[in-house]
Amino acid sequence: MAIDRLIEAIERKKNPTVLGLDPRPDHIPPSVTEKHTAKHGQTLKALQGAYKEYVFTLMDALRDLVPAVKFQSACYEALGPGGMEVMRQGVLWARNLGLFVIIDGKRGDIGSTSEAYSAAFLGRTQAGDALLPVFDADALTVNPYLGSDNLTPFLKDCETYDKMVFVLVKTSNKSSVEVQELTAGDRPLYRVVAEQVSRAGRHLAGQYGYLKTGIVAGATQPAALRQLRKDHPELFFLVPGYGEQGGKAEDLAPAFDRHGRGALVNNSRGICRAWKKSGTADYADAARKAAARMRDELKKAILL
Amino acid sequence: MAIDRLIEAIERKKNPTVLGLDPRPDHIPPSVTEKHTAKHGQTLKALQGAYKEYVFTLMDALRDLVPAVKFQSACYEALGPGGMEVMRQGVLWARNLGLFVIIDGKRGDIGSTSEAYSAAFLGRTQAGDALLPVFDADALTVNPYLGSDNLTPFLKDCETYDKMVFVLVKTSNKSSVEVQELTAGDRPLYRVVAEQVSRAGRHLAGQYGYLKTGIVAGATQPAALRQLRKDHPELFFLVPGYGEQGGKAEDLAPAFDRHGRGALVNNSRGICRAWKKSGTADYADAARKAAARMRDELKKAILL
Repeated sequence: MAIDRLIEAIERKKNPTVLGLDPRPDHIPPSVTEKHTAKHGQTLKALQGAYKEYVFTLMDALRDLVPAVKFQSACYEALGPGGMEVMRQGVLWARNLGLFVIIDGKRGDIGSTSEAYSAAFLGRTQAGDALLPVFDADALTVNPYLGSDNLTPFLKDCETYDKMVFVLVKTSNKSSVEVQELTAGDRPLYRVVAEQVSRAGRHLAGQYGYLKTGIVAGATQPAALRQLRKDHPELFFLVPGYGEQGGKAEDLAPAFDRHGRGALVNNSRGICRAWKKSGTADYADAARKAAARMRDELKKAILL
Repeated sequence: MAIDRLIEAIERKKNPTVLGLDPRPDHIPPSVTEKHTAKHGQTLKALQGAYKEYVFTLMDALRDLVPAVKFQSACYEALGPGGMEVMRQGVLWARNLGLFVIIDGKRGDIGSTSEAYSAAFLGRTQAGDALLPVFDADALTVNPYLGSDNLTPFLKDCETYDKMVFVLVKTSNKSSVEVQELTAGDRPLYRVVAEQVSRAGRHLAGQYGYLKTGIVAGATQPAALRQLRKDHPELFFLVPGYGEQGGKAEDLAPAFDRHGRGALVNNSRGICRAWKKSGTADYADAARKAAARMRDELKKAILL
């Protein structure tokens, strides 16, 4: 079951880090970009080639260190359909390396449209009698603003194709307070949403007690993390905001249970752009060192 | 200015309908699908060809009737990168026909990621010194759950490239009540969000008094439409839910101002799948008739 596979991969690698693959043109070492620009000029095609080389190299370099990768869909969409193709190939490659793959698309719509999103990222698209995989990740991030009929098609594919969703509850950005912390009844909105996610996924529990419907809860909000863990021992957390956004290892401890389980901590810039800080062109080596450092920091703060 | 161009296009065609291009495999006449399946088998490539033929034919047929088209991104994503390429070409073609183009992607993320989404759908992607358009629509739908730092990059591109956003406020689906109607202080959440959108876009007003930051407010919620119009004479509405989802012309009247301005009413299935109801294979003709009927119904209910 997807959630159990994820938990076991984390335990095998003794590391709850998810490698965030969020390339931007200025994240990529000039030596990589220049090679592709020389061939294709200053075009989307050149950037697509540079992103592919960069992302595949990082996955190869970190395959034994991290249990999971997260593709930030926006970054690939910004390069157009050819960028989406880089993401699609990246997902295939990651699965080939045995990594758990999350697509961070934060999708959400009315039910009939969510069916199409779910077909794209988790399920299958029907062509005549054929059921065809498209991006086929292990998990997708989902936005809760449209309520449960948005969630239903994703949950159906979680059952049929053994996938997961992570629903946005409390995000890591500053302005997350503006909507997510509005008081709804006696509680902030994000706690109401977490309750909805738990109810929607209650029939999808794995052997460690966690549901296939996880939530996104930011590292920059330790009080919210603590509250959510207390409210929902059954929800697995995807935690963004570690490192450059300000979240620290000790802030994350409340996200984990007494077995050291319960959360996956994302780091994108801190790992992928480590080459900039260390002043090296060997970005793969810089990323490995940064990822190992992060794993050791997390180990100290969390029982693993 | 984008919002003024939209209002003037509606007045020129005396029709506030936006043609929703939300293809699904079973929406397309078998005669179209079979042609592409004969060539490419039951593959995504065959569906991509069928979607392209169907969507382009509909746009050509309705170009003089409707002022705007809306691409439901999910439907194209469900066919993978090649489906996104059909959408990209569709946007180009629509603009070539003089239609106002909305991409319905309901995107939303933390600020640095929203920058990438905005580059993809409204702005430009930077490759060296070059600023490259990607999907380059006139407007994008945006999800408000992450607050104002999500909105900021989109608003920047609204200014720089003269674009619009429509932020989800009150959607047309049944479960929209679960989050959007939670009481926040003395009001339902959706009214708080509308207020945030109005504040964020207050410096982006066109000559008819409407802002470039519009909102999505469903036809299935006439009381909410009335309330939102009363609260916000400066917000332009994108109204889904007309027709097959249950919204009627008279339910929409409160969305419009005394000049007959203020909203764009989406219809996807009621127009694009009219061929199914009328039992004809001439889907373009069936769509024209359905669109003309809808325009006349709206005219009766709204001063235009």
